[in-house]
Amino acid sequence: MADKIRVTVWNEFRHEKSDSAVAKIYPDGIHGQIAKFLGANADIVTRTATLDEPEHGLTDEVLANTDVLTWWGHIAHREVRDDIVDKVQQRILNGMGLIVLHSGHYSKIFRRMMGTNCSLKWREARERERVWVVNPGHPIAKGLPESFVVPHCEMYGEFFDIPTPDDLVFISWYQGGEVFRSGVGYKRGKGKVFYFSPGHETFPIYYQPEIQTVITNAVRWVAPVCGPYTDLNNAPMVAAPEQFTVTD
Amino acid sequence: MADKIRVTVWNEFRHEKSDSAVAKIYPDGIHGQIAKFLGANADIVTRTATLDEPEHGLTDEVLANTDVLTWWGHIAHREVRDDIVDKVQQRILNGMGLIVLHSGHYSKIFRRMMGTNCSLKWREARERERVWVVNPGHPIAKGLPESFVVPHCEMYGEFFDIPTPDDLVFISWYQGGEVFRSGVGYKRGKGKVFYFSPGHETFPIYYQPEIQTVITNAVRWVAPVCGPYTDLNNAPMVAAPEQFTVTD
Amino acid sequence: MADKIRVTVWNEFRHEKSDSAVAKIYPDGIHGQIAKFLGANADIVTRTATLDEPEHGLTDEVLANTDVLTWWGHIAHREVRDDIVDKVQQRILNGMGLIVLHSGHYSKIFRRMMGTNCSLKWREARERERVWVVNPGHPIAKGLPESFVVPHCEMYGEFFDIPTPDDLVFISWYQGGEVFRSGVGYKRGKGKVFYFSPGHETFPIYYQPEIQTVITNAVRWVAPVCGPYTDLNNAPMVAAPEQFTVTD
Amino acid sequence: MADKIRVTVWNEFRHEKSDSAVAKIYPDGIHGQIAKFLGANADIVTRTATLDEPEHGLTDEVLANTDVLTWWGHIAHREVRDDIVDKVQQRILNGMGLIVLHSGHYSKIFRRMMGTNCSLKWREARERERVWVVNPGHPIAKGLPESFVVPHCEMYGEFFDIPTPDDLVFISWYQGGEVFRSGVGYKRGKGKVFYFSPGHETFPIYYQPEIQTVITNAVRWVAPVCGPYTDLNNAPMVAAPEQFTVTD
Repeated sequence: MADKIRVTVWNEFRHEKSDSAVAKIYPDGIHGQIAKFLGANADIVTRTATLDEPEHGLTDEVLANTDVLTWWGHIAHREVRDDIVDKVQQRILNGMGLIVLHSGHYSKIFRRMMGTNCSLKWREARERERVWVVNPGHPIAKGLPESFVVPHCEMYGEFFDIPTPDDLVFISWYQGGEVFRSGVGYKRGKGKVFYFSPGHETFPIYYQPEIQTVITNAVRWVAPVCGPYTDLNNAPMVAAPEQFTVTD
Repeated sequence: MADKIRVTVWNEFRHEKSDSAVAKIYPDGIHGQIAKFLGANADIVTRTATLDEPEHGLTDEVLANTDVLTWWGHIAHREVRDDIVDKVQQRILNGMGLIVLHSGHYSKIFRRMMGTNCSLKWREARERERVWVVNPGHPIAKGLPESFVVPHCEMYGEFFDIPTPDDLVFISWYQGGEVFRSGVGYKRGKGKVFYFSPGHETFPIYYQPEIQTVITNAVRWVAPVCGPYTDLNNAPMVAAPEQFTVTD
Repeated sequence: MADKIRVTVWNEFRHEKSDSAVAKIYPDGIHGQIAKFLGANADIVTRTATLDEPEHGLTDEVLANTDVLTWWGHIAHREVRDDIVDKVQQRILNGMGLIVLHSGHYSKIFRRMMGTNCSLKWREARERERVWVVNPGHPIAKGLPESFVVPHCEMYGEFFDIPTPDDLVFISWYQGGEVFRSGVGYKRGKGKVFYFSPGHETFPIYYQPEIQTVITNAVRWVAPVCGPYTDLNNAPMVAAPEQFTVTD
Repeated sequence: MADKIRVTVWNEFRHEKSDSAVAKIYPDGIHGQIAKFLGANADIVTRTATLDEPEHGLTDEVLANTDVLTWWGHIAHREVRDDIVDKVQQRILNGMGLIVLHSGHYSKIFRRMMGTNCSLKWREARERERVWVVNPGHPIAKGLPESFVVPHCEMYGEFFDIPTPDDLVFISWYQGGEVFRSGVGYKRGKGKVFYFSPGHETFPIYYQPEIQTVITNAVRWVAPVCGPYTDLNNAPMVAAPEQFTVTD
């Protein structure tokens, strides 16, 4: 692939404005930090978009020029416009990749793509998380150790109400006794979706090298593949080719 | 399971009123015929519901007393109320089974549960369909031959825009050169969904014994299992049990 | 299913003879205890078989009359005859269910059915295990709580070298920081395989009610389904039916 | 990946010596033709190996320097040495890709990796095959049309006794009324396996552009990923890290 992967890093961008502890960790916003480490790769080019921009920064023009969309949201999922969610869904089904991060599990777009509630258990106790690779030959596991520790995290526990993943890449262990399918991949239409749970706003998780490796690998994995079928929101009537007879 | 499986057979019930050819085949409606062959089983009890009834016949009371919902619709998918779709989705995620038939692939509830467009190719040419069992140990294949023929059908062809099935049970062959994943099962929340494509309204397909076997088996397969978790539309904050310490 | 499920409970039966601590917990052998709690169900009838019996107790006659085989082995996997493994594999592919327990992950029959090494990490530290249900609508989760604790266990940790499970039912958490896909189901031919990891010989794990529930549910889930195809060790040449023409 | 993918093209190489019709189509052997079109890609370098070479051409040195192995065999599967199959299996589990072609479905190595019989139906009637893409966003579907026709083929029909594919990419239609899961992908250990059914020796199938596209894409898809875990044929005892306490 000679062309670069065009990533749009989307962020709700509210915590950073209202909570000084978060602003201190992410002075340029969570989106700023994600765009920074992704953009450091020669094969990736980034732009950012946030909730309070017109059309949430996701105009038709932006979507048409996005190969991969990353999504971080938490307290304002309901403010995301349904018509924008409709458009994002259609772009994914026609090939765009989607990476959903942390509390984005409850975003409209992730719930739309999954068809389930995407609910889970949670706890904020600054506890330790250990992320285990359970699919070591998966492209998203490239360059990772067998497991790595997130020193302080928000616990996300099972039951995680998601469909059976097409690709289960990570399972997390938590100090308080829970487990979580923390890295899961899906095929939807011509597109791919990857969810990755670490990323609580009050910890510097997106500065951790292993986390950056996962998200960078995920960008490459969900990037579009140029396969057949150009409009999946359409059920065409088709004639049988001449050589295939349908008469008795 | 000593108790009977309570099936609600839902039908759009429009073709039968406006098209005499359909009415001739299904004088009691497609729902009437499906309820008839299902109800002949000792472990199944049926009721019916149709689009033009109040709340489409799917009141809270009906849904609360439904173990399995079967769905046939075609020309009036848009008339189904979104708030009813919301309720049906939540019932499925909390355990109710859903069986979607033929043109129901484009129903709001199926597209909601899948997260995809559920589009496909089609052709009405009275052609022959051959349904192959590709999962012979699956409960839905019980009592079936290796393959069976539907003498005249509407062709439904790939690409069928659905997520990867958890259970691929049938693949259909068509005279005109297409194939189709015609019987697919999914887990969603605590519930299960099964889609089965044969069933065009102008052919007497629901009178065919193999078709009846498939749908009857599917009712038993999607019937609720009494497992843990009682409300999946909820993300609870949980404390760690005393024996599991979260402090450093 | 009016007929009872005929279970053959297989055990290596060596630890119980050489280690008094194990013999104290399982005076009738691990197989005796498993057969006891399974046999208490009205729909199940059991027999046992052990390594040191002729043909390991798995004669053609026994296999032909076995619906479900459960397998516990540890220190003598290599003593199991390859020709018996061949026969067991063919019975599974033609419909018999197989339940592999604990250290049976390294048995010849499980490795044969998986095609992988089935290796894992382990530790004996009397630590706590918490088993989480991650598929609450699965028949094997019936009657279980969201999670349950095994007070003392041998740790089995990822990476567990198995193929992607068709059904991932349980994930275990361990005190020492590991996770494990502890309950996994597979379709193989017309048969089903279920692996369940708790069951170390020096702890009274098979007396624990939740463990018994899992294994009892698993027996029902892997029990044969009477679908088509009667000999899967055969690639038949077939003519096209008269109505399907293959000439140009 | 700056380095080229090192492909070893393996062929039984018997038909070409004994059957002049086959020799006419493949004067350099089936392996010669496959190596030729693969080697024309800038990112791929090939070598060949055949059954009658010492160690079937698969010495430790060759295997250690092979990223992807392609396999074509038919009449001499039994002559392949079991110890070589053992080595190939371990290389796959530790990351090497395997592509199995046509009658290789019955090879020792494919049956070993699958754990099933890999049986199927077949017919030689020079009939038409239509290969449908059912996973248009999959890397192996890149650059393909929605479907393509193989003008004359050997029919391979269901039931194909394989485990549930991790990736179902192609389903084939045959003139005589059968269907077949003709392109299926699997993860095994750290490695990947892809099976692709077209390729009968008496038709010039490996000269067809779409077939070449599929196999070339498959080479890139099964190529090794450098993830964690370096020896999967080993179950290590591990201590808990200092920060993870296992005492009560």
